[in-house]
Amino acid sequence: MNRLLSLLPLLPLAVQGQDAVTAARAYREAHGATILAHYRDLLAIPNVANDSVNIRRNAAELVRLLSAHGVVARQITRPGAPPLVYGRLDVPGATRTIGIYVHYDGQPAGTGNWVTPPWEPALYTRALHQGGTPRAWPAAGEPIDPDWRIYARSASDDKAPFAALFPALSALRNARIAPTSNLVFLFEGEEEAGSASLGPYFTDHRDLFDGIDLWLILDGPIHQSGRPQLVFGVRGVSSVEVTVYGPTRPLHSGHYGNWAPVPGRLLSQLLATMWDDDGRVTINGFYDDVIPLDPVAREALDRLPDQDAALRASLGLVETEGIGRIEARLLEPALTVLGMRSADVGTEARNVIPIDATATLGLRLVAGNDPERMQSLVEAHIQAQGYHLVRSAPDSLTRERYPRIARVTRGDGYRAARTPVNHPAAAPVIAAAHRVAGNDLLIVPGLGGSLPLYLFTDMLGKPTIIVPIANADNNQHAENENVRIGNLWYGIELVAALLTM
Amino acid sequence: MNRLLSLLPLLPLAVQGQDAVTAARAYREAHGATILAHYRDLLAIPNVANDSVNIRRNAAELVRLLSAHGVVARQITRPGAPPLVYGRLDVPGATRTIGIYVHYDGQPAGTGNWVTPPWEPALYTRALHQGGTPRAWPAAGEPIDPDWRIYARSASDDKAPFAALFPALSALRNARIAPTSNLVFLFEGEEEAGSASLGPYFTDHRDLFDGIDLWLILDGPIHQSGRPQLVFGVRGVSSVEVTVYGPTRPLHSGHYGNWAPVPGRLLSQLLATMWDDDGRVTINGFYDDVIPLDPVAREALDRLPDQDAALRASLGLVETEGIGRIEARLLEPALTVLGMRSADVGTEARNVIPIDATATLGLRLVAGNDPERMQSLVEAHIQAQGYHLVRSAPDSLTRERYPRIARVTRGDGYRAARTPVNHPAAAPVIAAAHRVAGNDLLIVPGLGGSLPLYLFTDMLGKPTIIVPIANADNNQHAENENVRIGNLWYGIELVAALLTM
Repeated sequence: MNRLLSLLPLLPLAVQGQDAVTAARAYREAHGATILAHYRDLLAIPNVANDSVNIRRNAAELVRLLSAHGVVARQITRPGAPPLVYGRLDVPGATRTIGIYVHYDGQPAGTGNWVTPPWEPALYTRALHQGGTPRAWPAAGEPIDPDWRIYARSASDDKAPFAALFPALSALRNARIAPTSNLVFLFEGEEEAGSASLGPYFTDHRDLFDGIDLWLILDGPIHQSGRPQLVFGVRGVSSVEVTVYGPTRPLHSGHYGNWAPVPGRLLSQLLATMWDDDGRVTINGFYDDVIPLDPVAREALDRLPDQDAALRASLGLVETEGIGRIEARLLEPALTVLGMRSADVGTEARNVIPIDATATLGLRLVAGNDPERMQSLVEAHIQAQGYHLVRSAPDSLTRERYPRIARVTRGDGYRAARTPVNHPAAAPVIAAAHRVAGNDLLIVPGLGGSLPLYLFTDMLGKPTIIVPIANADNNQHAENENVRIGNLWYGIELVAALLTM
Repeated sequence: MNRLLSLLPLLPLAVQGQDAVTAARAYREAHGATILAHYRDLLAIPNVANDSVNIRRNAAELVRLLSAHGVVARQITRPGAPPLVYGRLDVPGATRTIGIYVHYDGQPAGTGNWVTPPWEPALYTRALHQGGTPRAWPAAGEPIDPDWRIYARSASDDKAPFAALFPALSALRNARIAPTSNLVFLFEGEEEAGSASLGPYFTDHRDLFDGIDLWLILDGPIHQSGRPQLVFGVRGVSSVEVTVYGPTRPLHSGHYGNWAPVPGRLLSQLLATMWDDDGRVTINGFYDDVIPLDPVAREALDRLPDQDAALRASLGLVETEGIGRIEARLLEPALTVLGMRSADVGTEARNVIPIDATATLGLRLVAGNDPERMQSLVEAHIQAQGYHLVRSAPDSLTRERYPRIARVTRGDGYRAARTPVNHPAAAPVIAAAHRVAGNDLLIVPGLGGSLPLYLFTDMLGKPTIIVPIANADNNQHAENENVRIGNLWYGIELVAALLTM
């Protein structure tokens, strides 16, 4: 038994759940070619959020598929936003309602070279980087190699859960196994474009979402080590851009150098006060609001595979910032120089004292951090270094009054989301995933990246667990996005276990 | 009498010099229209250094003009370089030889909007910014307003000295006044393109330049206050570009932020160690080699008009770097952030940890500074901050060995030039200029900008004084370059005084 499970409350073993996994495997073995053919059809519908005609085609098809699987489904719309697909499957006697979130939009195709047009799915014998070549889609009954890949936009991100969900529902129905929870399906069409409408949708239709006890976010890849994972949190994100000023016009660096203040020097000296030599943020209060990981989450963290040495080697790094492994570092707030610019360098450099220097500072936030408060801490630090803050380019009166002026622009953003690893609602999820993945299962307290899951945890106030299906080498967001067939097979069994946990 | 002159050795008053100034004025008053017409013809020959056909037309015309004024003149050539124009006028009984340097090439026209095509000289009633309008060139005997302007490329920089030199020679010949020195004329055609061939020309023709006792560099504008000046030095120039490294590929700032080293932070922290809060350079030894100004030069410096308050107001600055007025600050070496770049800012900023960050550091050097030694001091400082230095992008073996790597690229450059204000050869020059400019004359120990005058002071080993003629508001290097007629008139009298000092 997974040692982590020993930390959790003892669970009644769901025999039905084990039957459901067996039924899902049998269904997939009998109908593999059909499952892939149906998935190919879904991937063939272009799905960029601002392509409103095709986005609606996806939504209509998903309503049709839900309905065909016994779910009461419909589109919910808002002017100017992709539709939400909403479905509900009530189970007599169930005392729990699970929300299942998937996003059906994908990244734009981009400018990269695709081996197949992004919305003309192609089957390959292996991943391209493993020497894979195109092959025919399988006929009924033909053996299917789990290492085959489907290349198409959204094959992993984030239509892969549909290739798990609908077959799992069919498998349960075939085996006459009922889900053990009421199910609410929420399919979003705007995630890759920023999810700006999701909060307003929640506000408009609060009644549809209030009774949900637990959200499963079916998105993202499994662990880089190749092991399945459940993820309990994401960081929030925001930014602050700061510009400091020199003379009002570029000056000859000979005729004025040593006299006119140099913005690049001022900016460097200002930024240098924000970190110590190890990269730890020295801004007053920066770490104060962080809610520490609970001991269970910390223990889960310690059990994650140690990737640091391999990552350092692959990235050409001898040292990293701060103390501790990457998994732990990503559970602290971060302040990162995303960009820095004053005039030009290299062959474009000129002998001038520039008029200004700008740095874009990225903030990543963890549980406890308020995005605006964190921006205010950065601003207070800049003021404490003697700068007068402005919100737009300083006028001449401002320049006459203040020797040091910093223009600060606050970026948009949102807070982190974190569900305790030992939340009561999490225990059956972990048990169900363990039933499918065995001791390979990893419990990840939090990812470094950001998703607006605070809408679920804070706005709806419910625990949220990310349940990844796709392979880690899926080229997410880039050209040649793909999914490994074996991961879809894992997903079918995983969903069957979750529906019957 | 100018108080500065009291500091200098008492000079025999050159009565002949006074006669020469009077003769020059009388000649100009009689022949003003002709002087301007001849100057217009010279300005009509395009003169960008890499326009070899027209550059040779300028050189040929200057040889013709020198010859017409009794100078033995010729072109000296090198493959691929604009010709030098070389002329010699030996004076029986003269015990001193003066070199007179002018450059006949000009800046490219640029992309700005000219009121007249750059090589179609136009006469204006005033400067454009004073509301000037075009007017006809004057007929013989017509009164000429000294506030008229000629608009044309090189009207000031640096053909203006020719409009002074040839009339002055004619005036002396008309008045039967012989120069008091042997004269060597050196007209360069590559100054605005970097003077790369001037050193090789000196090496190739050392015999032509060895016997010259003093060089007068006829270039640049008079003081910004509108007062005439003699300038005794320029700063040297060089640069160092430094790049520090993060991961070998751009990383997602969420998935790696707080773990991967951020190049913008590293660069800021590195740069911040190079100056104190007042902008004084803290690099070990940076000021050690500076040859202090002698007391005479320091006194001359103190007598320059205090421009600081006006400059600060016009440039939107409350504070400036270091302690002291601009004239004094520019006599120290400078280290300036000319440019700084890591990924992008503003709307181009992305949520990535960039792979590197670069700063271009400009060096301005003063008497005593060796360009390579100053670059070495910057490099030693970077090493002292824990960086391993490389000359090209680090390979993987280097990255495995060193946690902090800085790529340093040394820019080209040259040393400063300074002639003591109380150099014996300077006294008659100051006296001659004082004869024309009176107590308005300013003695400037050194300019902040750079010219390769070290070729004269160090390579030829001779004192060098810059003798400006043009107005300060001449739009040098930009569109609508112009010269004020009154400055040409000043130049004719000044040259007459210098030739007979």
